[in-house]
Amino acid sequence: MRATVMFGAGDVRIENVPDARLVEPTDALLRVTRACICGSDLWPYNQMEHSASGQRMGHEFIGVVDAVGADVRTVKVGDVVVAPFAWSDGTCVFCHEGLHTSCLHGGWWARDGIDGGQGEAVRVPQADGTLVVLPVGVDDALMPSLITLSDVMGTGHHAALAAKVAHGKTAAVVGDGAVGLCGVIAARRLGAEQIILLGRRPDRIALAKEFGATDIVSERGDEAVERVRELTGGFGAHSVLECVGHDLSTVTALGIVRPGGAVGRVGLPQHEQIPTTLTTFFDNVSIGGGPAPARAYIEELLPDVLEGRIEPGRVFDRVISLDEVPDGYRAMNERESIKVLIEL
Amino acid sequence: MRATVMFGAGDVRIENVPDARLVEPTDALLRVTRACICGSDLWPYNQMEHSASGQRMGHEFIGVVDAVGADVRTVKVGDVVVAPFAWSDGTCVFCHEGLHTSCLHGGWWARDGIDGGQGEAVRVPQADGTLVVLPVGVDDALMPSLITLSDVMGTGHHAALAAKVAHGKTAAVVGDGAVGLCGVIAARRLGAEQIILLGRRPDRIALAKEFGATDIVSERGDEAVERVRELTGGFGAHSVLECVGHDLSTVTALGIVRPGGAVGRVGLPQHEQIPTTLTTFFDNVSIGGGPAPARAYIEELLPDVLEGRIEPGRVFDRVISLDEVPDGYRAMNERESIKVLIEL
Repeated sequence: MRATVMFGAGDVRIENVPDARLVEPTDALLRVTRACICGSDLWPYNQMEHSASGQRMGHEFIGVVDAVGADVRTVKVGDVVVAPFAWSDGTCVFCHEGLHTSCLHGGWWARDGIDGGQGEAVRVPQADGTLVVLPVGVDDALMPSLITLSDVMGTGHHAALAAKVAHGKTAAVVGDGAVGLCGVIAARRLGAEQIILLGRRPDRIALAKEFGATDIVSERGDEAVERVRELTGGFGAHSVLECVGHDLSTVTALGIVRPGGAVGRVGLPQHEQIPTTLTTFFDNVSIGGGPAPARAYIEELLPDVLEGRIEPGRVFDRVISLDEVPDGYRAMNERESIKVLIEL
Repeated sequence: MRATVMFGAGDVRIENVPDARLVEPTDALLRVTRACICGSDLWPYNQMEHSASGQRMGHEFIGVVDAVGADVRTVKVGDVVVAPFAWSDGTCVFCHEGLHTSCLHGGWWARDGIDGGQGEAVRVPQADGTLVVLPVGVDDALMPSLITLSDVMGTGHHAALAAKVAHGKTAAVVGDGAVGLCGVIAARRLGAEQIILLGRRPDRIALAKEFGATDIVSERGDEAVERVRELTGGFGAHSVLECVGHDLSTVTALGIVRPGGAVGRVGLPQHEQIPTTLTTFFDNVSIGGGPAPARAYIEELLPDVLEGRIEPGRVFDRVISLDEVPDGYRAMNERESIKVLIEL
């Protein structure tokens, strides 16, 4: 079968790889029908050292079940299913707590011999715990929004929860990438009254406003902090969604949060230590977040997608074929595209 | 009047200072009857550079109201009152949110011309917002426990809330000082089933067990982390109360928290950045806490003290007069005493 393999920074190829096949009785075999490229895929795209064997890619996908192992109970051949960006058994103590990313028997796509989502097929471990059946046809018009439940919409929702977004409060979203835009959707969905997007690209700002952003701050660093304070009576935002992961964005997030407020961070940190200061302590600011347990949120978010109350699929501004994936990486990396959808 | 003044590391004296007196119509004048020495007072006791004018000390006290300004409504002459370790108006937006330490018109004792608590009298700004009347006599046997509502019991409670202690869960308390011991009380009060104290001094361990600690870990660093994991099925504690503020104690706190768990930090940080790692992110661990809004907790904790359900006053193992305060600092600093009560 054909799948995306990254061999080093800037070197993404579509290669022939061994066919995905059932191994464990808890596996399902999926023919991928939609996949996408994630902002986090751009970190290795910029930094990966050359590897002769390469690295499979992709952790967001929808597909049709082609086969199931003997122990699989909740999905059957022919089902259209969405996979969250981590696989999980659904039965361990952490899954029961809704923290599927810490599943005791789970793991990550495109790692340790598991297929990546940017390819023709995927062996899905722990299929019962991992997959969610979608009540739509394989080419339903909602596919762009449905595939965001794999990662980017769940991640925006996770940021909003970690930032303790609440009805009538102020939320600030740091970052105008696809996650930040979904963070705006999530903040609005959870009832934030004022939603400030920190971003500077006109197409993304326009979309953020349609998603519910009430204010835009395009300054950076200290100027951004000052501007957010002006917009919030001098206090800062109750909830700050950090959707980038850079040092500067994290410093900004901590600079614009109100005393007693919360920063929810979902951008993959490009630092070991959180670049915080004693002000965070004296202001009783909390810091939470991490990789979103997207699986935990699918049932909650799915009805809103199916009934059109949220349209996170609008973050996709380019649709490509599998052969075009290398150019899709380039386009996202050069900010030509917010997020790229792959149709197989 | 006489009051405690620190002139540099190790140099604490009882000095004659200007008499406390009413200045603003919102002030009350308090004759101090009980005060104490705080673990945080030991930071300057060890590190303060010499100062010719010195620094007034003390932020925990109970007293009798001697006079009130024209605008004071909630306390009257003769009332026995407790003061939290920050003064606050009780009416601003942050006070209404229960974050009195961020009061827009509040401040700290022994700073900016405000009296410290380790002295004969105190001018109390914002008396209506700051003081809570105690329904007991000035020499009631409960005085030791009542004065912990100024700081140390409220701080332990704050750590437990920030660490999201919940019924049936596991809490770990890093530090066997007075705050850590009150953290044990708070964790038990909030329903934690397993309470692990990290400490090594026999007298404190004995008290912690009486307060509700179920397990003691006296190892440090990596060995402490390993031991806590053994005690928690390999996962770590749901809630970790960081009651020290050192780098090592913070690293330990972050090392023993379970995925999805929370660290509540109340130990005055001796670092700018939180010494965290990417594991904190990948495990979705949250970090919260700061100076406790002790004022917010007095009404909630007071009935438990009055009715004997909690006995935080047992952290005091030495009672001294004002003249003996310099020796009280020495005794706490040399770990001869857990916490020192001053009777005036």
